[in-house]
Amino acid sequence: MASFIPPKRTLMGPGPSDVSPRVLEAMSRPTIGHLDPAFQTLMDEIKDLLRYAFKTENMLTFPVSAPGSAGMETCFANLIERGDKVVVCVNGVFGTRMVENVTRCGGEAIIVNDDWGTPVSIDKVSEALKANPDAKILAFVAAETSTGVASDTKSLCALALEHDCLNIVDAVTSLGGSELDVDGWGIDAIYSGSQKCLSCPPGISPVSFNERAVEKIKNRNTPVQSWFMDLNLVMGYWDGTGGRSYHHTAPVNAMYALHESLFILKEEGLENAWARHKKMSEKLREGFNAMGIKYLVDESCALPQLNSIIIPEHIVDEAAIRTKLLDDHNLEIGAGLGALAGKVWRVGLMGHSAREENVDKCLAAFKAVMN
Amino acid sequence: MASFIPPKRTLMGPGPSDVSPRVLEAMSRPTIGHLDPAFQTLMDEIKDLLRYAFKTENMLTFPVSAPGSAGMETCFANLIERGDKVVVCVNGVFGTRMVENVTRCGGEAIIVNDDWGTPVSIDKVSEALKANPDAKILAFVAAETSTGVASDTKSLCALALEHDCLNIVDAVTSLGGSELDVDGWGIDAIYSGSQKCLSCPPGISPVSFNERAVEKIKNRNTPVQSWFMDLNLVMGYWDGTGGRSYHHTAPVNAMYALHESLFILKEEGLENAWARHKKMSEKLREGFNAMGIKYLVDESCALPQLNSIIIPEHIVDEAAIRTKLLDDHNLEIGAGLGALAGKVWRVGLMGHSAREENVDKCLAAFKAVMN
Repeated sequence: MASFIPPKRTLMGPGPSDVSPRVLEAMSRPTIGHLDPAFQTLMDEIKDLLRYAFKTENMLTFPVSAPGSAGMETCFANLIERGDKVVVCVNGVFGTRMVENVTRCGGEAIIVNDDWGTPVSIDKVSEALKANPDAKILAFVAAETSTGVASDTKSLCALALEHDCLNIVDAVTSLGGSELDVDGWGIDAIYSGSQKCLSCPPGISPVSFNERAVEKIKNRNTPVQSWFMDLNLVMGYWDGTGGRSYHHTAPVNAMYALHESLFILKEEGLENAWARHKKMSEKLREGFNAMGIKYLVDESCALPQLNSIIIPEHIVDEAAIRTKLLDDHNLEIGAGLGALAGKVWRVGLMGHSAREENVDKCLAAFKAVMN
Repeated sequence: MASFIPPKRTLMGPGPSDVSPRVLEAMSRPTIGHLDPAFQTLMDEIKDLLRYAFKTENMLTFPVSAPGSAGMETCFANLIERGDKVVVCVNGVFGTRMVENVTRCGGEAIIVNDDWGTPVSIDKVSEALKANPDAKILAFVAAETSTGVASDTKSLCALALEHDCLNIVDAVTSLGGSELDVDGWGIDAIYSGSQKCLSCPPGISPVSFNERAVEKIKNRNTPVQSWFMDLNLVMGYWDGTGGRSYHHTAPVNAMYALHESLFILKEEGLENAWARHKKMSEKLREGFNAMGIKYLVDESCALPQLNSIIIPEHIVDEAAIRTKLLDDHNLEIGAGLGALAGKVWRVGLMGHSAREENVDKCLAAFKAVMN
C-alpha cells in the first residue's frame, strides 16, 4: 500500500466539478478547533457569503456538515411532523428521493408526477393543493440534477403561499450556476451542495430557512427525529448569539474550502457567474448539435450547468464510451440515473468546470470516442 | 473580506488534534468523482485500513460521510426499531447523547447512571439486564471524551451477549489511541471519529458492524427513519459487490485525508501507537503532578489520550486561562462539558498531538499562565 495519488481528471459530470487550485490550497491549511474564536469568525463570514449566494437575508443560513442528501433530510426532518401532508413534485430522481424523505419522517406524500426531462407542471400542483387543503408543505426540485431541467420556482413558491403551505426547494445544482433568488422568490427552506456550481469538494450542504420556517421548527409538537440534524440544537452552534455552544465537531478544513469557493464566487459576481454558465452551455450545445447529438430537455427550460444529451441510437455500449472518455481523455461525464439510465449522458458545466477550455476538451473527446 | 488564513495552533483539546502535514497535503490533491474507478480503489483501501485499526474482519466497515455524532446516529437509527428497549450507560456527556438517540429513534431507554469520571459499573449493568429481559441492545461509551475514563468494554460486551442483546460502542476517542479489539471483544456495532487519535481533520466517522448487527439491519420490520443514514442503502455504495450504486456524494478529499492518516497509523503499528499515547500521558501526568495539579480520573481507568485535570481552587476565571493559553501560546485545550463545566480542563494527547514536544509545550504554557 502507498499514499493515494488520484489521477488528474476533468470533471464534467453532475458533480463534483473541477475544484480550483485556490480552494484545494485553502483546504490544506492547518486545522484549528471548531470552537476557536478564529473559526467563529470564519463561520460568520461563511454565513454572510452564503446569504450573498442565495440572495437572502435569512439569519438561519449555514452549511450542514454533511453532503447534499443530509441537507435535504435536514429540511424534511425539521419541517415535517408525523401525519403532515406534503405535496411532492416528482420529475426526476431527486423528487423521488424527496418522497422517501417525507415518508421516513412520518409525513404523507401527495405525489405530483411529471415526465422526466420536463419541468414541474404549475397546473398540476395547483390542482393538488386545491384537492388537499390540509397540506402543510410543497416540496420540489428547482434544478433536477438527474435531467437538467429547471422548474419555475417563483410561481411554485407563490402557489404554496396562496395555499398556506411552506415550501422546501432543492437547489443542489442551481446555487451559483443559474438564477436563484431565495428572498425574491419567497423560498421558505432550501438546500444545496458544495460540489456543484460552487466547485468545492463534496461533503457540505448549504441551507437557508426564513422566519416562517424557523417559527415552525421552534414550535414543533414533537422533537426532530434526528439528533444530528435537529436545527433547534444546530442553531446554538451556528447561530449562537452570546457565545456558541458545542453540538457536533464541524469539518474544519472543508469549511476553509467552502469559504474560499464562496469568496471566488463573490469576486466574480453572482450574475456574472450565471452568465458565464449560460455562455459556456451555448457553446457546448452548438458543438453537440454540430455532431448531430440531441438534448433531452427543451432549451427553454434547460439548465446551463447540467446538459442531458440523448445517447445516439447506434451506440450499443454506452458505458464503454464513458470508460473511454475517462481512460483515454481523463474526462468524467455522468451516466443517466433511474429511468434515464442507458438513455442519456449528463454533461456538467459547473462552477470552475464552466470554462472555454473544458468545453473544447469535452467536444474534442466526444468526437474522438464516437468515431 | 479575504481568504481565511487560520492561526497556527497546537491542538491539545478533546479533538480535533494536530493534523500531520502529510495528511493536509493528501487532502489537497485534485478532486475526482465519487464513482471514479480510482476512487473505488481508494474506498477498498480505506476499508482495509479501518479493519486494521478496529482489529476486525467485519465486511461492513467504512467511514460515514459526516462527523462522529452522525456515526453515532447511524448505529442507533439502524439497530433500533420503535419500541425496542435499550439499556444505556451514562457516565458522561456522550452517554446522555446516546439516550437522546435512543428516544428519537423510538426506542425506550433504560438508563444506568454512574458518576462522571468513573467507569460504567459492570454490576449495575448486569442488574439492569436481568431486570429487563426484553432489552434488545446495550449501549455504552468505551472512552468517554467528556471525562477521559475508559470502561471495561470486553466485560460489557460479554454481558450483553449473555443476555442476548446487541451492543453499540462509542469509540470516538479510543480508535488508534488505546486498546480496542472489535472482534476479540465481541463488539457488534461501533462508531468513531476522524479528528481524535487518527489525527485527520474532522468530518468523518468510521463505523463497523458484525454479522449479528448486519442481520438485524437487513431484517428490520420498518425502514430506517433516516434516508441518509440507512445502511441498507449505504451498503450498496460502500459494500457493493459487482459494481457500486450511487447513494450520496462522498466527501472525496476528506477520504484522501483519512486514507493517509490510517496509512500513517499502519506504518507506525497499532500497538506502537497505543504505547506512544501511554508514554506521553505518563510524561504529562508527571509534569502536572509536579505542579500540584490533580486528575479527575483514577489512573487505573484513565485514558492516556484524554486527560481531565481538576481546575485548582484558586482559579477564579477558568475561561480566562484558556484564552491566555490560546492567545499567548497558541495552545488549545478543552473546557469541561456538561456537569463538569468550570470544574475540569481536558488536555488531549491524540494521534499526531501525542508527541514529546507537545507535552513540553503544554506544561511550559500552563506554568506560564498559572503563575
